Amino acid sequence: DPKLKVFTCNANPELAKEIAEHIGVPLGNAQAVRFSDGECQIKLNESVRGCDVFVIQPTSAPVNEHLMELLVMVDALKRASAKSINVVIPYYGYARQDRKARARDPITAKLVANLIETAGAQRVITMDLHATQIQGFFDIPVDHLLGVPILAKHFSEKGLSDIVVVSPDHGGVTRARKLAERLEAPIAIIDKRRPEPNVAEVMNIVGNIEGKTAIIIDDIIDTAGTITLAANALVEAGARDVYACCTHPVLSGPAIERIANSKIRELIVTNSIPLTDEQIIDKITVLSVAPIIGEAIIRVHEELSVSKLFD
Amino acid sequence: DPKLKVFTCNANPELAKEIAEHIGVPLGNAQAVRFSDGECQIKLNESVRGCDVFVIQPTSAPVNEHLMELLVMVDALKRASAKSINVVIPYYGYARQDRKARARDPITAKLVANLIETAGAQRVITMDLHATQIQGFFDIPVDHLLGVPILAKHFSEKGLSDIVVVSPDHGGVTRARKLAERLEAPIAIIDKRRPEPNVAEVMNIVGNIEGKTAIIIDDIIDTAGTITLAANALVEAGARDVYACCTHPVLSGPAIERIANSKIRELIVTNSIPLTDEQIIDKITVLSVAPIIGEAIIRVHEELSVSKLFD
Ligand SMILES: Nc1ncnc2c1ncn2[C@@H]1O[C@H](COP(=O)(O)O)[C@@H](O)[C@H]1O
Ligand SMILES: Nc1ncnc2c1ncn2[C@@H]1O[C@H](COP(=O)(O)O)[C@@H](O)[C@H]1O
Repeated sequence: DPKLKVFTCNANPELAKEIAEHIGVPLGNAQAVRFSDGECQIKLNESVRGCDVFVIQPTSAPVNEHLMELLVMVDALKRASAKSINVVIPYYGYARQDRKARARDPITAKLVANLIETAGAQRVITMDLHATQIQGFFDIPVDHLLGVPILAKHFSEKGLSDIVVVSPDHGGVTRARKLAERLEAPIAIIDKRRPEPNVAEVMNIVGNIEGKTAIIIDDIIDTAGTITLAANALVEAGARDVYACCTHPVLSGPAIERIANSKIRELIVTNSIPLTDEQIIDKITVLSVAPIIGEAIIRVHEELSVSKLFD
Repeated sequence: DPKLKVFTCNANPELAKEIAEHIGVPLGNAQAVRFSDGECQIKLNESVRGCDVFVIQPTSAPVNEHLMELLVMVDALKRASAKSINVVIPYYGYARQDRKARARDPITAKLVANLIETAGAQRVITMDLHATQIQGFFDIPVDHLLGVPILAKHFSEKGLSDIVVVSPDHGGVTRARKLAERLEAPIAIIDKRRPEPNVAEVMNIVGNIEGKTAIIIDDIIDTAGTITLAANALVEAGARDVYACCTHPVLSGPAIERIANSKIRELIVTNSIPLTDEQIIDKITVLSVAPIIGEAIIRVHEELSVSKLFD
């Protein structure tokens, strides 16, 4: 049977370690370092000839560094005769540039998909893509994992009562419904509207939240503007308590300050992106995606081995 | 006739401005900025429909930022219906990772060529590639410009006498010969040899340099170890005076300190890579490549227009 090997670059080595442990293999011996001028150097210190290789690398900030590490690593693995190269991108950077929102916009999410294929990746495992259309940007198989089961389990275990799951915008309703189903709760939607140009947005809440425990869910929390405004609007409209959750804690710029100062009681995130020291605050709880990614890798590896019989 | 437009990202806007002036066109209205999380955003503020577009962007440090800006810009231009997309990369980053020097090395110079083509570039204009083989990494036309004529002109105008042009290693002999021909001077070669493992390298000078004005030439000066050791060896061996020159002043890490403390009287470089404030010292003279790049762009634009007749 071709051997399964797991490698990582610098974006989330702790997650990679956890995943390797879950699978029961040692983490592969490779390093992504820098030459004096900042160019990326990949040191692949063990043979991968004939192996099914999985590279764990979310393309989180600094996104261009992490993306390039991944591409160069894939190039090295390809030239070292790996049997299959599978990239595990728990957080897919540039996902929000997935369409021409304005004239002459690039579609960077598609560009990145092309770059990853060009480097030589043969399969992608990722989580909660900002738009599921991004799967179609690839011409190789994409395994798309969901964070909702992990988040739902956490809230179930808390034993909260009288829950309503809230989508902070219309784009997130499907995700909110999935969480609501698992928690056997109703949903509500925040309907942002700008009454006139250059007038502040008004937040209308569609659905009954009064006296309830609201759980806001989003895929990405970046500057945390949307989610903290939503939380405060919910409390003002009579919610008893507000929790928030997301798969990908980007948390850039004023995010931590906003969360700390908001009406959010607890923010649940996953470790698809590692938190920096400054991002670790009491209000934030981190759940691990290592088990579900580990299981996905085991399944893919089995598939790759079985398919060999039919080649 | 299709219109010629020149754009730039952030790697060398001053050079781009000079090139646009040389050609006699305004610099195109576009910006490469960053979202809060560090993702690259390209704002293309004018139409490029039906235009022959040239993007000036050396992939100098921070190389991954500058490369990604270039790729996203090309994606935006492609989707905005540019007639032709020509990338001008005066300094081609990752050029030294052009072969498997060790087992399981990536060949990043080839990866980068593939990335640039994948993004949608249709032609490359570049200068003094570390290895001319890199032209073959592309499946699109590459115009390869040389810095030697510019450097030779500078030395000719200085009126130095009794010159010898020195290559700091065997790989650079062709380049040294080209400069020597223009200066009607002989060449010498520095032959580095490690007498035994773990013993310091010895610098043998092949050729006559005694009492002469040595001009060391290289394509890239990075940490300046090679060139400053060579300069000091030349002075010890009896050279009257030592000049150095290169096309691409990478100048990372200890480079500036080493140059300042070396026996090099003057270092001549080009503006293929802009110098930072700390890199501007009295000993360093910068020559502009804007005229030769400008001429190359005019020539390519004419070619593109003429070829239309035969389509
Ligand atoms: N990294 C980013 N940070 C903030 N906004 C972004 C980023 N990338 C893309 N966008 C913008 O986000 C919008 C798409 O987000 P959404 O409407 O949530 O799908 C578009 O207007 C994009 O220009
Ligand atoms: N950015 C870089 N800085 C320093 N050395 C590099 C860089 N990129 C590649 N190399 C190494 O430089 C060597 C090739 O340089 P050369 O022998 O001059 O062609 C190889 O051993 C590469 O691993």
